[in-house]
Amino acid sequence: MFVEALREVVENTEGAIAGLLMDAEGIPLESYVKEGFTAPFDIEIVGAEYSVIVKSVQRTVDSLEAGTTREVSVQAERVTTLIRVLTDEYFLALALDPTGNIGKGRYMLRVSAPKLLAELS
Amino acid sequence: MFVEALREVVENTEGAIAGLLMDAEGIPLESYVKEGFTAPFDIEIVGAEYSVIVKSVQRTVDSLEAGTTREVSVQAERVTTLIRVLTDEYFLALALDPTGNIGKGRYMLRVSAPKLLAELS
Repeated sequence: MFVEALREVVENTEGAIAGLLMDAEGIPLESYVKEGFTAPFDIEIVGAEYSVIVKSVQRTVDSLEAGTTREVSVQAERVTTLIRVLTDEYFLALALDPTGNIGKGRYMLRVSAPKLLAELS
Repeated sequence: MFVEALREVVENTEGAIAGLLMDAEGIPLESYVKEGFTAPFDIEIVGAEYSVIVKSVQRTVDSLEAGTTREVSVQAERVTTLIRVLTDEYFLALALDPTGNIGKGRYMLRVSAPKLLAELS
């Protein structure tokens, strides 16, 4: 169920490598790596690391009274990561190669969010 | 000098509110608030908060061996923040309202980076 939504996001975003659904503690619920690819990193470690970022971002957003965090993106030399916050408890991450289509990735995460939310609740 | 570059970024990005140049400790070197606006937050606090995010992101990026962090963006309900990492020591932040032109903001930060770097070194 979750894997189908992740598959759709990854396979429909040019340059996407992997998708990950995780909880606020960084524990992965489900992950999907693009067909023909090998995950270039340990999904468990990535989950834990990104949950730290999301918490740090939410603390900042709270202190600025800027409302709920919706999306965080990180562009590094070798990978771009888009994170979509689903609820306080769950978030969705998409890793793309540096030439990947970020706009399409953001769009795919946004449209898949309600489907995943419906299954999570 | 720095303020001129920040002014250019803010005034040429639709929906931009403020620009901030700060060091890795979050101490602001310079800031610019859009003409006719009042900063909706304390620039010193924002700087300190965002430096924590950038450090947390860079730790993650390092642990994933993903190279240098180039850009971080955070979209919250009431504000979008784009952060452009200039060097290990300095970064540039742009705050936009939620309907602001993110693509233009990213472009303006990218083109102003070399000018600021030249002055910083």
